[in-house]
Amino acid sequence: MPLRLDTASPEFKARFTAFLGTKREVSQDVAQAVARIIDDVRARGDDALIDFSRQFDRVDLGALGIRVTDTEIDAAEKAADPAAREALAFAHERIRSHHQRQLPESGRYVDAAGVELGHRWTAVDAVGLYVPGGTAAYPSSVLMNAVPAKVAGVKRVVMVVPAPDGQINPLVLAAAKLAGVDEVYRVGGAQAVAALAYGTQTIAPVAKIVGPGNAYVAAAKRHVFGTVGIDMVAGPSEVLVIADGAQNPDWIAADLLAQAEHDTAAQSILMTDDAALADAVVYAVERQLTMLPRRDIAAASWAEFGAVIKLKSLDEAPALADRIAPEHLEIMAADAEALAERIHHAGAIFLGAHTPEAIGDYVGGSNHVLPTARSARFSSGLSVLDFMKRTSILKCGPEQLRALGPAAIALGEAEGLSAHARSVAIRLNL
Amino acid sequence: MPLRLDTASPEFKARFTAFLGTKREVSQDVAQAVARIIDDVRARGDDALIDFSRQFDRVDLGALGIRVTDTEIDAAEKAADPAAREALAFAHERIRSHHQRQLPESGRYVDAAGVELGHRWTAVDAVGLYVPGGTAAYPSSVLMNAVPAKVAGVKRVVMVVPAPDGQINPLVLAAAKLAGVDEVYRVGGAQAVAALAYGTQTIAPVAKIVGPGNAYVAAAKRHVFGTVGIDMVAGPSEVLVIADGAQNPDWIAADLLAQAEHDTAAQSILMTDDAALADAVVYAVERQLTMLPRRDIAAASWAEFGAVIKLKSLDEAPALADRIAPEHLEIMAADAEALAERIHHAGAIFLGAHTPEAIGDYVGGSNHVLPTARSARFSSGLSVLDFMKRTSILKCGPEQLRALGPAAIALGEAEGLSAHARSVAIRLNL
Repeated sequence: MPLRLDTASPEFKARFTAFLGTKREVSQDVAQAVARIIDDVRARGDDALIDFSRQFDRVDLGALGIRVTDTEIDAAEKAADPAAREALAFAHERIRSHHQRQLPESGRYVDAAGVELGHRWTAVDAVGLYVPGGTAAYPSSVLMNAVPAKVAGVKRVVMVVPAPDGQINPLVLAAAKLAGVDEVYRVGGAQAVAALAYGTQTIAPVAKIVGPGNAYVAAAKRHVFGTVGIDMVAGPSEVLVIADGAQNPDWIAADLLAQAEHDTAAQSILMTDDAALADAVVYAVERQLTMLPRRDIAAASWAEFGAVIKLKSLDEAPALADRIAPEHLEIMAADAEALAERIHHAGAIFLGAHTPEAIGDYVGGSNHVLPTARSARFSSGLSVLDFMKRTSILKCGPEQLRALGPAAIALGEAEGLSAHARSVAIRLNL
Repeated sequence: MPLRLDTASPEFKARFTAFLGTKREVSQDVAQAVARIIDDVRARGDDALIDFSRQFDRVDLGALGIRVTDTEIDAAEKAADPAAREALAFAHERIRSHHQRQLPESGRYVDAAGVELGHRWTAVDAVGLYVPGGTAAYPSSVLMNAVPAKVAGVKRVVMVVPAPDGQINPLVLAAAKLAGVDEVYRVGGAQAVAALAYGTQTIAPVAKIVGPGNAYVAAAKRHVFGTVGIDMVAGPSEVLVIADGAQNPDWIAADLLAQAEHDTAAQSILMTDDAALADAVVYAVERQLTMLPRRDIAAASWAEFGAVIKLKSLDEAPALADRIAPEHLEIMAADAEALAERIHHAGAIFLGAHTPEAIGDYVGGSNHVLPTARSARFSSGLSVLDFMKRTSILKCGPEQLRALGPAAIALGEAEGLSAHARSVAIRLNL
């Protein structure tokens, strides 16, 4: 059974705080193993990739080749289910069109002192996209990571995906082709991250690595951070549904289960001011669970991490939602917009009863790579900006240097950096 | 002597690649020591801070207090040199005014299908600013980190700064007050980062940690990344000056030395198509070095990591500059703007002979926290955006759900996520 909380209870504050502190992932300390794998790939390149792939994925890349050829990708595309391919193309166009709007503008201006200031956005040259293999291989994730990179203008988007027993999901390769991924390699794990960061004989290094992965992949990304850029280290996924009493409990239950089926560590939370709705949703979840192919995963997630929080009033929801800082927030209530305005920490907000989170996962157009595990307090979903960087520009003439110089000299001297002061003074004949 | 390279030489390609690969920092493996310090702060809170400060900073925080009081800050402000304080206020106003322009706009639109999409920017609630103690305590850095946070709307900006032997640079405290820093604590090292990330009895946790530090601080930031957000892990600083033959060698030499005086691991590079200018700059550096208080540091940096690269033509500069991806790029040449256009990877560009990099360090208005050690290939200087996050917003009505739903259902089923598909289908009576 999920946790049941009630803001009217005197224990609520303590129990809610304990709930927020619940660890949903066993943190595996794999840093040392990962450091060894990375060192080995740096030292031996392709040979290390071949050895690790034999060991972890039971595949002989020496025979099969590290790179997935265009012929293989074309064949996979043809092998993929036509209806799924069509849906993928529909999603691709919506994602591309939305992300196109995120392209930032460069700009210059002259301030009152006559100093020219500006900034210029440019794309990262080369990006690596990690795609998990096996059951967590999601073609939609390929689109969500590769499309913003391509919209940003990244020239070289490189995908790595493990091929356990030689297999790669054909729809993943079809998505890669659709999104314009430039190179695909059948390697995974920390060894793939090392190859992307440092390069091997076959894989040229990239400047930034994005995409989800297991504990080894996360530790490897953390390890190479600085040598390359990385995106957030993703944790287990979560949804918070805020609903008033007028909502359909079956719809809410379906949304909670859509989250719960991801992973036993996923988390689904309902907040409502209506006790009858809360009970109806709990009942509907139990009933719907029996129909789900992934019922074991969803049931475990719901039982262990699910929560139903009864509020005195929806007015309490924003402050509590901000403490949860959910990856996904559905607001199904008459005053959804007003409630949304008052919530500051959420990866994505889905407004109204007709916007189930799954629409955002696939075809809404916005990105489904969102900050998990309370990180919406300080980070954002993936966007075109993650594949670009900003160069600042400064330009003074002699007059501006005369106006600004004395303060720069004073600060340089105050900080004990005389050569800084001198580089200004020498131009002013001081 | 600095490295001398010539693009006309047949060995240039190999020597330039070797030059790029030069390690400027001995990477200290302090990860395990840092993990122990962090665990101890999490377990024992303030007591651990007091113990570590006694051990590392020779200061008794039990007696002195962990928090720097407003009275102490006011006293420090009064004790600071008035000319420096005035320069700091001048810098503060220029930095504030420039960063104000970086505030991003939230937005909403309705697409052709009638789907509402949007994004909303909000500030991070609480930010921790690490400020190094001792000789590397730069009041200008306090402004450069705190001002964008305050402009972003961060309610709580917390500064930590070690107090070796009880001492804190008064101008650092004056800068904190000027920038509107809300709380100051006299702790440093990995223990300060742990306190900011996890909180202690005295220090409430923050959501993001920024600011430079030594190897322990960098390792601690890497360790807590995910629990809180962090900025880039800063490496040693560098400047690349691109100059044509018409430039003043003394000015260029002064700029190269301003960079070199930072740190023996700093790097100053000149590229020019004029052999006589190259020689004149090398000569001017040697001559100016003798006058510098920090001549030992600057001389070591210049001898070990400095480089003068003679080009056949300035036309070669952009491609080489992009490979260096310098933190600071000065272009002192007749066609500075055109050259700048062709360079994609640089933290900041300083255009023309009257824009020495030191102006940008202090009073230009743009941020001096910039990507070092080639990370301008994938990251940007600090900005207001680093203290905000974006929530995406999606809203469908019944009609939009009918239009988008079937593709979402197809993809959910294709990915084996039936509950995802079902959360859409149940609303469409499918």
